[in-house]
Amino acid sequence: MSAQIHPILLCGGSGTRLWPLSRKSYPKQFAKLMGDESLFQASARRLSGEGFAAPVVLTGDPFRFIVTEQLAQIEMGPSGILIEPEGRNTAPAILAAALWLAAQKGDDALMLVAPSDHVIPDAEAFRATVAAAAPRAKAGDLVTFGITPDRPETGYGYLELAAGADATAAEPQSLARFVEKPDAERAAEMLAAGNFLWNAGIFLFTAGTILAAYRAHAADLVEAVSAAVEGAGTDLGFTRLAPEAWAGAKDISIDYAIMEKADNLAVMPYAAGWSDLGGWDAVWMESAKDEAGNACSAQATAIDCQGTLLRSETDGQQVVGIGLEDMMVVAMSDAVLVAPKAEAQRVKEAVSALKAKGASQAVQLPRDYRPWGWYESLVIGGRFQVKRIVVTPGASLSLQSHHHRSEHWIVVEGTAKVTVDETVKLVTENQSVYIPLGAVHRMENPGKVPMVLIEVQTGSYLGEDDIVRYEDIYARN
Amino acid sequence: MSAQIHPILLCGGSGTRLWPLSRKSYPKQFAKLMGDESLFQASARRLSGEGFAAPVVLTGDPFRFIVTEQLAQIEMGPSGILIEPEGRNTAPAILAAALWLAAQKGDDALMLVAPSDHVIPDAEAFRATVAAAAPRAKAGDLVTFGITPDRPETGYGYLELAAGADATAAEPQSLARFVEKPDAERAAEMLAAGNFLWNAGIFLFTAGTILAAYRAHAADLVEAVSAAVEGAGTDLGFTRLAPEAWAGAKDISIDYAIMEKADNLAVMPYAAGWSDLGGWDAVWMESAKDEAGNACSAQATAIDCQGTLLRSETDGQQVVGIGLEDMMVVAMSDAVLVAPKAEAQRVKEAVSALKAKGASQAVQLPRDYRPWGWYESLVIGGRFQVKRIVVTPGASLSLQSHHHRSEHWIVVEGTAKVTVDETVKLVTENQSVYIPLGAVHRMENPGKVPMVLIEVQTGSYLGEDDIVRYEDIYARN
Repeated sequence: MSAQIHPILLCGGSGTRLWPLSRKSYPKQFAKLMGDESLFQASARRLSGEGFAAPVVLTGDPFRFIVTEQLAQIEMGPSGILIEPEGRNTAPAILAAALWLAAQKGDDALMLVAPSDHVIPDAEAFRATVAAAAPRAKAGDLVTFGITPDRPETGYGYLELAAGADATAAEPQSLARFVEKPDAERAAEMLAAGNFLWNAGIFLFTAGTILAAYRAHAADLVEAVSAAVEGAGTDLGFTRLAPEAWAGAKDISIDYAIMEKADNLAVMPYAAGWSDLGGWDAVWMESAKDEAGNACSAQATAIDCQGTLLRSETDGQQVVGIGLEDMMVVAMSDAVLVAPKAEAQRVKEAVSALKAKGASQAVQLPRDYRPWGWYESLVIGGRFQVKRIVVTPGASLSLQSHHHRSEHWIVVEGTAKVTVDETVKLVTENQSVYIPLGAVHRMENPGKVPMVLIEVQTGSYLGEDDIVRYEDIYARN
Repeated sequence: MSAQIHPILLCGGSGTRLWPLSRKSYPKQFAKLMGDESLFQASARRLSGEGFAAPVVLTGDPFRFIVTEQLAQIEMGPSGILIEPEGRNTAPAILAAALWLAAQKGDDALMLVAPSDHVIPDAEAFRATVAAAAPRAKAGDLVTFGITPDRPETGYGYLELAAGADATAAEPQSLARFVEKPDAERAAEMLAAGNFLWNAGIFLFTAGTILAAYRAHAADLVEAVSAAVEGAGTDLGFTRLAPEAWAGAKDISIDYAIMEKADNLAVMPYAAGWSDLGGWDAVWMESAKDEAGNACSAQATAIDCQGTLLRSETDGQQVVGIGLEDMMVVAMSDAVLVAPKAEAQRVKEAVSALKAKGASQAVQLPRDYRPWGWYESLVIGGRFQVKRIVVTPGASLSLQSHHHRSEHWIVVEGTAKVTVDETVKLVTENQSVYIPLGAVHRMENPGKVPMVLIEVQTGSYLGEDDIVRYEDIYARN
């Protein structure tokens, strides 16, 4: 048992509301939406330092290496990474984390459950608020964090304080009930009433308290998720929840499954700034703006614009807006979104429309993240393709061959260990290797810095599925 | 002397009103704004066939190889390409063409002078109209083509017909005078009056008629331009007007210099459709539209939009608009423009703003056209750069060396003849060559199809100015 607080970072989402920057292959929490760190990195760092244990991360299989890489970039290590075989909303995920943590640290372990795709600019204030909430959680309450509202927002759920509670207090207050997303009129009433806070989906409780609540209010979930945790496999340091058992867990939020039923609820008010960045309008709201209310990225130019979000997310791409009012423009080399800010919640329609067109931009970023690093296609011609491939130190691609293409590899940064049939050699900056069609080959980075390689493929068929894998340290087929 | 009509294609402009597709390095007339041909190609083809001689093209030095390549693509050859050392507006250019043509074909040669960046959808109707105007031009009049107006446009000059003339006639009419761009009220009056046509800047006259007019109304121009034509050099088939003499020619339009002073004016009405594509609003107007009035390119998706132009000009880039009304969005991989259509005439402000920022996108396309073909940078890293290089059949890059970089070349289409120091060899698809730092090298395309090559540079400095040229068939330094 530890007196520390264990951050439980929920990192499974695949939101489409921030397309084109956030895509299914690389969702919002991993993107650098605000500043130089991703939202996930900022979340992990916010809940670190004195009083905090290393985080437990819950994520999906496609994101596990992004999680480890992003944590490594900020020189943090997780105490565990739990892989959800598929997304089942927050109730099963938090239950899995509670069971896992209780087994490791005992029932008294304090869990701070937080989404990893929110913005909380004042990390110090937030940590102080978490510390202030800890005694009430230790005492056996389920503490929710309630954000002081500054507008009649209809996009969030609300928390109604109990009679006599103080919505501006610096310590936990009693909570009457959870309120679902309101209409505009009701939102205005709640803002005026003063005893309502926004539900940020951030919770503090001991593993024992929340497990007891699950047993009382969601016994069926406990059965399925316990089996998934007990049957979990470990794989390269990841804890992979058992898929069959997990499939039996209901897809439900912790608000519905537990919070709306429990009576040991408390709320900790927080007034120092928070946003769920639930759309480009929210990103605009949280961004630094010029005098006319425009939030422009470095490569964006606003001429005679007002209240407009203007972002270029790709190096070497300039965006210019002229005479725009309350618009949002998000540009990347492969996809551009333009809409009034008022239509921010309709961005998912763009994703659906592109899916219907069969356009890969609906779900896929130009950079494709893999266990060993990432690659992007630089140009595709009739019988050739050029890729940039970046391999992280110590990583290795599978031993493979192709039926329809040969490859030229030119190392431009770092050092590669290259296997071609029977020969193995080190290839360094400004050296090249030729992989004939059919040759069995492998690329590794034995060094201490990322290895960057340009691959020029030629052949009659260049699809990713022309691959025969002989060995793979990441156990792919 | 020939009975044929000689098309004189004015191809010097560097308009910024269609940025980002049109840039100084590759202006509007060379872009595929409407359909599969460039405006220049469509203009050349429109004035070809029975009754027309091969065209004379007036263009600037940076565009001479684009002109020859685009004519070759549509299997046309020019009768001459006159290079203007710098743009001096239409009066000196047309005078140079008249002097050059008169020297070749005599004073009776008929000249059809036309901008090469306009849209005239019905080529057959236009050719018939030119034919109908020919007798009046042969008889010694300066015939201007007047477009039947369909709206009170303030962006064009107007032509006022003489009393008793018929603005709907199928033969030339007498012209009272040229009218400058009007304000909205005056434009509405002229549209209502019915005896005004738009000035399209298209003219038909004999070389002798227009030379006489220049001698009568612009004697100083005749002196300077005659010297520029007499002193012209020929170079790879181009006629390069003498720069010092040309510098003495006044920068003035033919309307001001000649047409507003001459009294042998006639106008040929034309009602079958024309646009100068003077802005993205005009492009929208001329484009095919859906039921809601949206003009979308293949990779553009309009969700709940109205009256909007939505274009992606780069392969592999999707553009989505949601809830847009009367907007224009033009996206490329390296630059995006968003504005209300009503602001179309302010696009040049975008170019100015980017120039002030030092952004190359103000003037330069990703593809850089050279005498031997073109290249584009695919990715630039700290110590490496990858380029796609396309060399036209028969073309050759200069014999050169670099102080700071080595290069790997991989041929992916066609065949290259490669010189590296003392060795010369043929390199074909899927073969590579290494050019060590300091080696004297050259790349040629000896074949009949374009040669495509991927170049991977590594070194401490990768600027285009790290080049020592030893020989260049295009006489560059």
